[in-house]
Amino acid sequence: MKILILNSGSSSIKYQLMLMPANEVICSGMIDRIGLESSNVTYKTKDVSFEETVSILTHKIGLEKVASLLLNSETGVIKATSEIEAVGHRVVHGGSYFSDTVTITDEVKNKIKELSELAPLHNPAHLVGINVAEEIFTTAQQVAVFDTAFHQTIPVEAYKYAIPNYLLTENKVRVYGFHGTSHKYVSEQAIQYLEHNSKIITIHLGNGCSMTAIKDGKSIDHTMGFSPANGLIMGTRAGDIDQSVIFYMMKNLDYTPDEVNSILLKQSGMLGLTGYSDLRDIESEAEKGNKDCQLALAMNAYRIRKYIGSYAAVLNGLDAIVFTAGIGENSSYMRKLVCTDMEYFGIELDNDKNQIRSKSNREINTEASKTKILVIPTDEEFEIANQVYHLLKN
Amino acid sequence: MKILILNSGSSSIKYQLMLMPANEVICSGMIDRIGLESSNVTYKTKDVSFEETVSILTHKIGLEKVASLLLNSETGVIKATSEIEAVGHRVVHGGSYFSDTVTITDEVKNKIKELSELAPLHNPAHLVGINVAEEIFTTAQQVAVFDTAFHQTIPVEAYKYAIPNYLLTENKVRVYGFHGTSHKYVSEQAIQYLEHNSKIITIHLGNGCSMTAIKDGKSIDHTMGFSPANGLIMGTRAGDIDQSVIFYMMKNLDYTPDEVNSILLKQSGMLGLTGYSDLRDIESEAEKGNKDCQLALAMNAYRIRKYIGSYAAVLNGLDAIVFTAGIGENSSYMRKLVCTDMEYFGIELDNDKNQIRSKSNREINTEASKTKILVIPTDEEFEIANQVYHLLKN
Repeated sequence: MKILILNSGSSSIKYQLMLMPANEVICSGMIDRIGLESSNVTYKTKDVSFEETVSILTHKIGLEKVASLLLNSETGVIKATSEIEAVGHRVVHGGSYFSDTVTITDEVKNKIKELSELAPLHNPAHLVGINVAEEIFTTAQQVAVFDTAFHQTIPVEAYKYAIPNYLLTENKVRVYGFHGTSHKYVSEQAIQYLEHNSKIITIHLGNGCSMTAIKDGKSIDHTMGFSPANGLIMGTRAGDIDQSVIFYMMKNLDYTPDEVNSILLKQSGMLGLTGYSDLRDIESEAEKGNKDCQLALAMNAYRIRKYIGSYAAVLNGLDAIVFTAGIGENSSYMRKLVCTDMEYFGIELDNDKNQIRSKSNREINTEASKTKILVIPTDEEFEIANQVYHLLKN
Repeated sequence: MKILILNSGSSSIKYQLMLMPANEVICSGMIDRIGLESSNVTYKTKDVSFEETVSILTHKIGLEKVASLLLNSETGVIKATSEIEAVGHRVVHGGSYFSDTVTITDEVKNKIKELSELAPLHNPAHLVGINVAEEIFTTAQQVAVFDTAFHQTIPVEAYKYAIPNYLLTENKVRVYGFHGTSHKYVSEQAIQYLEHNSKIITIHLGNGCSMTAIKDGKSIDHTMGFSPANGLIMGTRAGDIDQSVIFYMMKNLDYTPDEVNSILLKQSGMLGLTGYSDLRDIESEAEKGNKDCQLALAMNAYRIRKYIGSYAAVLNGLDAIVFTAGIGENSSYMRKLVCTDMEYFGIELDNDKNQIRSKSNREINTEASKTKILVIPTDEEFEIANQVYHLLKN
């Protein structure tokens, strides 16, 4: 079954065509800067790979471009759009409505639209992607895979905030959780690796950063809440902060609410602390002796350690911690900081194993370590394709 | 040495006269509703106790009233104000300036005034109290004891927020920590009880609620940050909340910043979740089957458990947890909720010992419990008197 995975952002479309259940990537690429004169288009199969700059003014033109790339008589991979049996759409916010992957109906689209209020940057773009995909891939099943779905198992004492009840019942203010596709994928890989259903903490460190407490394969707590703003320190996001700081900035420093929000989302985190947002730069500066960079890395790891403790409490135990995503998979520096002084939790890093770079699932703890330390590369596209495949097969 | 302890709030003065080092309370009481026609005055010695309603229009009149009560020829306890050798003022915010108790000078007063920006409800009232006390108790040493002082040992990776650096360097936005007098007192009591410097978590559950991670007698992390707003769920305060909720409430629900702040501080926490703010009412409703009350208590304990885990990580170990203040000392219900499903941290509650009501320091864990569970009644007035005594004696 050929499944096209689409991730439509406000000015971009990422795509990947997969053959399932073989888990084979047929082709992949992205269109960036949609709406501008010089949009960027990439396309890659196992035989060819190219990039071009053209004007893609709308998502519709963008998806038509994707279709024409797939159908191209020389470099293409299909003969007709009807070969694609399903299109799997990544959707950031499924609210409390969706705890599973679903076939898209008008009702589903209405819900996604309704949830735009909670994810104004993402859900409207996903809807455009869905509507255009329906026009172009007319014979394919359209399926929505939600980032929030995996976290719908979080119990009420963890998802509810201590604010007046009407904010939950009428305004849907609660913890939703994000990066669900990634946390689900790596936790399932970890459970396979450990050969038993365990008490696991998954640590997704990429552009966004988040952690999930996973018990018997289910998400029971998560660092991101109502939006992907809080929890861990990220590239440009502050993560957890005393709310009184926000009121202080508005009242005493004369910032508007939008300015404060923008500072916390775009000028904070590692960027605000160091002037750099790319972790590789920060690590290399830290190694050269830059004190701000050293402190920012220490703060980042400190907060991760606190959440490891927190989630060990929520789980009343700990079998494994799992590092994933760009930083989690590649930064031995950050992993070492996180695993230092954590003997109380049975966490003992093997420094040699930690240095090994690899694309496979691996264990980087010492033999004696009571808690396993795993590195598991995430694969959100595979997870989406897999969910679409299983939905349609049944 | 007779030491008068003063806690001046915006419309109240609490006072206690102590004989040190005997740690004997000579008299105590408070004046409430200052500025109104019907202020409430209480006065208590070991022999007499009374309450009266009079008009106390200013703090000056209030402190003069306190002096006249102390000097009263029939029910008083001193013959002249000069018998009082020191006045110890509780001051909420000492910023980064004060890590110890200090004799009050003009410079100290200027700093307290400067810090009013960070504690607008408290520091101005303390200043009035200090100025008036200087006029009335002219021969006494005036001493300031800061709520924040104990937390000045928190290391930078714990006190700094992941926001642009200028907010710390220029605007002093950082974790300060509060309830320091209480956390210091009970942690010292716990160390005496345990007979060694240990890894301790103190849990202060009163009107305000906070927790401190204490290593070798020093505060190294704390749940309250820049203000006493965040961390645990309190009577009417939300504690930790995703900051995006604040922006959502302003943008989508049309609340002003002041309204959101007021909801989070005065209409949230246990009150927002249940309609009740007194824990005794909530417990009795929960026992009758009220689902909102049951959930609110579960949420409250859940967050405390998460912080226990978090601080066990920060401490890389755990020797004891200590319950204190009104709820911590008296609510066996809440203590039980907190200590349930915490075997991973070696926390095992003895249910019978937990039921005992007492005013003494006590241990309520099972014999087998690896981690001690202590109940230690706090005594902030004694702690203040003790600090004043030691400062002046040296």
